[in-house]
Amino acid sequence: MDLKERALRAHEEWGGKIEVIARCQVNSRDDLSVAYTPGVAEPCLKIKDDVSLSYKYTRRHNLVAVITDGTAVLGLGDIGPEAGMPVMEGKCALFKAFADVDAFPICVKSKNVDEIVRTVELISGSFGGINLEDISAPRCFEIERRLKQVCDIPVFHDDQHGTAVCCAAALLNACRLTGRKVSDIKMIVNGCGAAAIAVTRFLMLLGVQDVTMVERFGIVCEGDSRLNPAQAEMAALTNRCHQTGTLADALKGADVFFGMSAPQVMTAEMVSTMADHPMVFAMANPVPEIWPEDAKKGGAAVVGTGRSDYPNQINNVLAFPGIFRGALDVRASDINEEMKLAAAHAIAGCVPDAELNAEHIMPLAFDPQVIRAVASAVAQAARSSGAARI
Amino acid sequence: MDLKERALRAHEEWGGKIEVIARCQVNSRDDLSVAYTPGVAEPCLKIKDDVSLSYKYTRRHNLVAVITDGTAVLGLGDIGPEAGMPVMEGKCALFKAFADVDAFPICVKSKNVDEIVRTVELISGSFGGINLEDISAPRCFEIERRLKQVCDIPVFHDDQHGTAVCCAAALLNACRLTGRKVSDIKMIVNGCGAAAIAVTRFLMLLGVQDVTMVERFGIVCEGDSRLNPAQAEMAALTNRCHQTGTLADALKGADVFFGMSAPQVMTAEMVSTMADHPMVFAMANPVPEIWPEDAKKGGAAVVGTGRSDYPNQINNVLAFPGIFRGALDVRASDINEEMKLAAAHAIAGCVPDAELNAEHIMPLAFDPQVIRAVASAVAQAARSSGAARI
Repeated sequence: MDLKERALRAHEEWGGKIEVIARCQVNSRDDLSVAYTPGVAEPCLKIKDDVSLSYKYTRRHNLVAVITDGTAVLGLGDIGPEAGMPVMEGKCALFKAFADVDAFPICVKSKNVDEIVRTVELISGSFGGINLEDISAPRCFEIERRLKQVCDIPVFHDDQHGTAVCCAAALLNACRLTGRKVSDIKMIVNGCGAAAIAVTRFLMLLGVQDVTMVERFGIVCEGDSRLNPAQAEMAALTNRCHQTGTLADALKGADVFFGMSAPQVMTAEMVSTMADHPMVFAMANPVPEIWPEDAKKGGAAVVGTGRSDYPNQINNVLAFPGIFRGALDVRASDINEEMKLAAAHAIAGCVPDAELNAEHIMPLAFDPQVIRAVASAVAQAARSSGAARI
Repeated sequence: MDLKERALRAHEEWGGKIEVIARCQVNSRDDLSVAYTPGVAEPCLKIKDDVSLSYKYTRRHNLVAVITDGTAVLGLGDIGPEAGMPVMEGKCALFKAFADVDAFPICVKSKNVDEIVRTVELISGSFGGINLEDISAPRCFEIERRLKQVCDIPVFHDDQHGTAVCCAAALLNACRLTGRKVSDIKMIVNGCGAAAIAVTRFLMLLGVQDVTMVERFGIVCEGDSRLNPAQAEMAALTNRCHQTGTLADALKGADVFFGMSAPQVMTAEMVSTMADHPMVFAMANPVPEIWPEDAKKGGAAVVGTGRSDYPNQINNVLAFPGIFRGALDVRASDINEEMKLAAAHAIAGCVPDAELNAEHIMPLAFDPQVIRAVASAVAQAARSSGAARI
């Protein structure tokens, strides 16, 4: 039975990948009088007087909403809110299995930014955090930005920031392996969509200074009329020598390639024009920008992809469970840049020097130390940056 | 330790009365490839082509949202959305324990009817049903009415309809016990708020013809300028002889009293002016309109209250779990009047003739046959009324 058929049958058998259970007994009159009326009035009144006690007396302290509008689900595009739910439920199952976070999937039946923002804002008092998922660009930028302003709980668009944190961890360890300093490298990012922009911004925050982005039509350069507003912003921050041309032109002499674009747009020949011992991260999934074998033929010193069947998988599951675990543990008001940088360093640090090699720059997705290290680092960064509330 | 202190400590220890767990394994690469990428794309695409398959491939088929705005929580009034959550979580725990329904609590941070309606509508694709809870009148009427129009899943305001169904069951069995026909009785309803109006409307649907409602200022009579719009509607349907006066005036010769009002507004003397062998349902909680002992002194043949420490407890937990279980089982588009009537008759039918007596007209809250009987009757009524979709 092929994977498609197996997945369908499994989903049918599961009848949903999440379930809501009771943590209290309600088997007797006495149980009811404590968990429900009349006893329940007491925690209600405590919260009425101090809303922060909702974290003490309800599940809020451990609850994350996984929210989509179904407009950019996996590589499937705009398939609708209900059709996005199997992915959201899967995400929730990962949250629980990896980080004991209670995550609940919600799809919003609107594509209107104002409506989505207001809907999420109005239900945010039920949760300790909001994970946005599979919302199309450029709407995802504004939805996240505005929700971060109006919500007093963390709002995190995993497609952007979870990916960025994992890419940063990969770059840190690839630089460690090849003896480079992040601040010295010349980086090419192929693609200029939401994830590519988030990754680029975050790697610049990490210390990368020389960045050039490449879109389908060529190198992203300030003043190009083909750029959308988000891309134009990036053009003003990158490619400071105003280079024009193709991906092949951009790659000459580059230390690292990040592909957030399309299958097989890169060749071994292009890798061979990069700097010595180049680093290649081909994130298009399931078919990467260049297969690892070909990248190595071109001379790549280290190659990472999104695939689990090659070494160095760059997988968001390394990041989001620990990031939210750490944020919830200190009742963070936000997931800020400091916390994301801490997560990236923590993931990278899970591969000790003795184990670091070209086939092993990323910890494995199922390594239990990763969640602990990330959660701890994120909580610490929340405290030192002022986002922690306990 | 008194109940208040016990309830607070229990809530602190539980750390929330609900929890979201995973129904699928995600412990290996292969698990992930089935439950998450890339396998999850298959159920997504199926749902994209046929939204009804969201009931097959996600948890929607068993999921109910328990939604409040925190404006009328228990007897505590408008305590705010977050402060209402301990009650919502308790309700969710009851749903799971009594009917294996996955219920998830959501508070909406708005008192604006338009906003609440739109918010619930936009998230309704995540659920198989909506249970509205503890929303103040008259807003609750409009919110429910409009949501029933815009949602293709059942929307049910339990404070109104769950109470009405249980009161109907109590009345059916009290009439059975005292040898009355529902269509012949003279009924007095004290109170004219949301629950009282819902109960009155439903008991009229059940067959009661002679009804008089009484508000704080006296008998509700058509043309009285003190009536709000919802009360004015009721005045046009009830008290067809246009009686005026007090509760005491109204009660003379009445067969049944339903109190949905305030503590101790009724006396034994007032009961003694009712018809022979009167039926008294004093639902104010925790202190009823008249204590059962006093009602009996006045000659009441049967007395019911909301309290668990007296016989004949009229408790919504007899109704809502089975009603939603039945509705979900047939993927109902609505919980309509036929389904609610079926639930009332099913609850009443759980007390066989041989067991029926003045101290036992209602089944016990923890009697497992009730949920089965109600769910089965509701599902059947959904089928015969056209609300069932499978």
